[in-house]
This record gives sequence, structure tokens and C-alpha cells, in this order.
Amino acid sequence: MGKIEGTMPTLLILSKEASTYRALIESANLPDLTILEQASETCEIILGEPSHIGEIFGQFPALKWVQSTWAGVEPLLNPSLRRDYILTNARGVFGGLMSEFVFGYLLAHERKIFQRAEAQKNREWDKALTGTLHGKTIGLLGVGSIGAEVARAAKFFGMTVRGFTLASRASEYVDKYYHTDKLMEFAQGLDYLVSILPNTKETQKVVNADLLKQLPSHAIFINAGRGSAVDESALIEALENDKLAGAVLDVFEQEPLPKEHPFWVTKNLTMTFHTSAPSFPKDIARVFIENYQMYVERKPLKYVVDFEKGY
Amino acid sequence: MGKIEGTMPTLLILSKEASTYRALIESANLPDLTILEQASETCEIILGEPSHIGEIFGQFPALKWVQSTWAGVEPLLNPSLRRDYILTNARGVFGGLMSEFVFGYLLAHERKIFQRAEAQKNREWDKALTGTLHGKTIGLLGVGSIGAEVARAAKFFGMTVRGFTLASRASEYVDKYYHTDKLMEFAQGLDYLVSILPNTKETQKVVNADLLKQLPSHAIFINAGRGSAVDESALIEALENDKLAGAVLDVFEQEPLPKEHPFWVTKNLTMTFHTSAPSFPKDIARVFIENYQMYVERKPLKYVVDFEKGY
Repeated sequence: MGKIEGTMPTLLILSKEASTYRALIESANLPDLTILEQASETCEIILGEPSHIGEIFGQFPALKWVQSTWAGVEPLLNPSLRRDYILTNARGVFGGLMSEFVFGYLLAHERKIFQRAEAQKNREWDKALTGTLHGKTIGLLGVGSIGAEVARAAKFFGMTVRGFTLASRASEYVDKYYHTDKLMEFAQGLDYLVSILPNTKETQKVVNADLLKQLPSHAIFINAGRGSAVDESALIEALENDKLAGAVLDVFEQEPLPKEHPFWVTKNLTMTFHTSAPSFPKDIARVFIENYQMYVERKPLKYVVDFEKGY
Repeated sequence: MGKIEGTMPTLLILSKEASTYRALIESANLPDLTILEQASETCEIILGEPSHIGEIFGQFPALKWVQSTWAGVEPLLNPSLRRDYILTNARGVFGGLMSEFVFGYLLAHERKIFQRAEAQKNREWDKALTGTLHGKTIGLLGVGSIGAEVARAAKFFGMTVRGFTLASRASEYVDKYYHTDKLMEFAQGLDYLVSILPNTKETQKVVNADLLKQLPSHAIFINAGRGSAVDESALIEALENDKLAGAVLDVFEQEPLPKEHPFWVTKNLTMTFHTSAPSFPKDIARVFIENYQMYVERKPLKYVVDFEKGY
């Protein structure tokens, strides 16, 4: 009785999964936390999708901390928006899902899953030899917490792993790291190229004609990072002219992809729909709960975003 | 220079990949080995496909050892055929390939790979939530060297693993083993059921109506062992009535599957064509070379088949 005002943090949930998040957080019985029923001046913490938050968070003078339910926080990075709060994103929860995405599609390719489905339709006993991941070389553009999990899965399947990063060498599952001006060397002769790059100034159109030229014609490119990392015209040119065996794109410069975009019918291009690593509330609530404990104990939060770097 | 006769083993290769096997084995410079150009009375060792061997190996009085290029040796198990030689099969080389097959198709299911391909054709931005392997329960019917590799991959993806075997408990990646009269208990509530059973007296129609009834309607069944382990009518009944979400069959009672067989068009049934774990000559040659070293040193060979058990 008689709690001092200011020690009772208030949380606003701005998410299309708000009721699920509320239930998960309430069940954790966090100390002193009040979950707001609706937007209020007193709001100190926001949990939610960056797209929802950016529209209204200018109204909250007491705002101290925003926990994003996504890994990507582009909607909050516009320099015209406030930066007088701590922004944390969701990390450590997408790596396993992303591995399932990447290896699901690489195996679909090696196992000729679409070709065999077509054979079944035609009642043909298709003995075409299957390929294997074992012994192949994969290159990861970007090796953060997600890339590290993809690298671990690649090692599990007996592959050689190259990593391209600005400077970091955090994963032990990467056989060789490449930086800055070694991008072309990194790409030379890869069987599979996977981009997990965030959308930053440095990553614009990294996957362009020059880079694609380094890949052999049997190579597969997967983009599971952000669409801005790919020169879309260069990729179409490479695929239509069989300079590349296939591409799997989960992200695009514009999403949803416009109906008239050539990607819908580009040769050997497989689309998914920004569905590679969804934010499951039970995973994201765990991140929030862990960070909230740090917050009330006035310890540094985990997964703090650098507004300048953009991740 | 005066070698004693009988110390120069002769090898006959009976395989559709004979020239590849010859090159691989010649390059290993095995001690004292003569590779025969054609079938001959002197033949002491045969390397090849059981289907080829069974037809002519009655003609070789000096035959001592047959190395099969396959895991399955049914064509050599007919009681009317000779058994006065050592039969070894190929093991330790199919586990990785079989894992790629099983997890390729499980991921295709969870990731809705066919559904999303259809959406792309229709220019639909399909945000349907993806599933995940993580946290699911898989049951392996048969846990030999292949099953152990599938179990290891299941653990990598964060799954719970049950194993059904006659008595063995060889893999540390199986969380719980079941035997003999515990088959129904083993199957209860599985998300995925995978058969890797060989064709033996004990395995006939193990996957029948009673067993399929134990599975929830969201379950997937994969048969990568032998077709004889499945009651085909019971499986069709379960799939057509949505008692099972899907099946992936690589093996059948009759292969190639007859054109008029109902499997070609059974609801939610995906066929492959005995292509799950091919015998790559470089892998099988390694098995032969290793066993040949044992043979000339008169040590026990690896992977000896028990004619009674059938594996």
C-alpha cells in the first residue's frame, strides 16, 4: 500500500495480436506492471508492431521504451520521428524459423519436389536422380543471430559455410568470413547464396548484376532479409537467361508485391509472402518479459536498436 | 613373382554403374584384387545390385562374398537361392540422404510450399501463417543406422522423437523407445509417423487401419522403408476421409506403381519414386573398399546380412 508514483510502469500493446499478448503477459505476473486498456498520456512502455507504433507514439510524453514484435524496425527509423526512447527489437527467436524456411526451399530444389509432383500428375514413374545438400557451399550475406542459426543448420547438413559481414565474426559455424571489398570473392562459385541483410544505407542493392555474375549457373539465390538488398532488374535478367538456376524471394522492395510486377512470372522464381519467419506471440512475449525484468531492475535492456545503424 | 594361387581375389561387378565402380575401385589400388572383365567360374567376390546378382550368381562355384550396392537385399533372400556365401549390404551411407528426404517433405508441408506456389500462379499475396517443426513429435518405425540419422535431424529441429524397434535401443537421439505390444501406444498422438522398416516377415502391413487410427487428423505419414509395411487400402481410406492430413510414399508393394493404381490420385498423397536415398557409387565404393580390406585380412566383414532376419 502506498506505492510511490513512477514505480508502476504502464504498458500499451499496439498489435494485431494484442489480446494474445495481454494474456501471455498477464499470466507472467510481472512486478508492478499496469497494462493499459487504451492509449493514454501516462504510457511508458509500448509493445507492438513498428508499423502501428510509428503512427501514434508521438502522443506519449512519458514514453521510455518500445519493444518491437518484429526484427525489422524500418517504420521507426525515419529521422523525422522521435528518438528520445529506447527501442528494442525481437531477436533470438527467428533463427530456427528462418533455417526451416531456407532449408525447406533448398531441399525442395535438390529433391525436385515440384518436378516429382508434376510426374505424379502425369502418372510417370520419375527416377530422376535426387541431389543433396551434403558437400555444397552456402554463402550468407549477413551473419547476425538469424544468420548464425542458418549457418548452424548448414553445418548440420554437411555444407561449407561462407559469411559476409561488415566486421563481425560471431558464429563458429562459419568456415570463412569476408568483409567490405571481398564481396565478389565471397560469392565466387557458391552453390547457394542467402541474403539475411537488414534494410540499411549499406545494404541497398548489394545483390546486383556484378554479384550475380560470380555465381555458377546451377546456383540458387534466397532472399529472406529485405527487398532493398536486391537489384530486381538484374535478378530478372539472370534468371530469364539461365545464368542462375533459381531464386526464392520472401521480401520485396514493395510489399505486397504489385499485381503487375514481373516477379510473379519470372522464370524459376519462387515467391513467398514475407512469411519466412513469423512473430509468434509466445516467442515475442518471452522477449518482452525478459526485457521487462531488466527494465524494472534498471539494467541495460537486450536487443537495443542503434538508430543510426538501423538494427 | 610367385604369388600363391587363391590369394588373388577376383571381383565381378554387376551394376548399371559398373564402369564408375571399376574406376573408383581401381583408383584405390587394393592389394591383390583382380577385377574381372566378364562373368567367370573363378569369380570369388561380387559387387552389385541384388536384382542383377540373383539372376546369375548360381553359376560361380568359388563365390565367397557378395557386397550389395543397396540397403535392401530382398532379391537374394528367396529360400530357393544359394546361401553358401557372405552377404553384406550397404549401410552407414543412406542416413543423411534419408534425412534430407524426410525433412524436405515435412518442411514442404509445414511451409505450405505447394499452396504458396499456387498463390504465386494466381498473383495472390498469401499471408497464411507458416508452421514449424519445432516442438512437434515424430515417431520412427525402425531405428537402425538410417533411423538413427533421421532421429538426429529431428532433434536438431527441436522435435520429440519416439522409436519403435524389435528390441534395439541404439540411438541416443530417440527420447523414448517402444517394442512389440506397445505399437499403438507408440503411435498415439504423433504429428509425424515415418516408416523406415525393411521388408521382413515381421513388418508386413504394420501400418494398417488400427495403427492409422492412433494418429491425429493433422498427422503426416511418410514411408521411406518398404511398401510391404503398409496396408494400402487402409491408407487410402484414411486419406480420402481426412483422418490423416497427408502421406508421402517413396516405396510401394509393386514398383514401378501400376498406371491404374489409386495412389496416383489419392487425396493429399504425395509420391516419390524409390528415389529417397539413392546409392551414389562414391559412397558405396567406400563401403566395398573398407570391407575388402577386412576380407583380405580375414577379419569379420561389416554389415553382414542375416538371411533369416532379412537385414
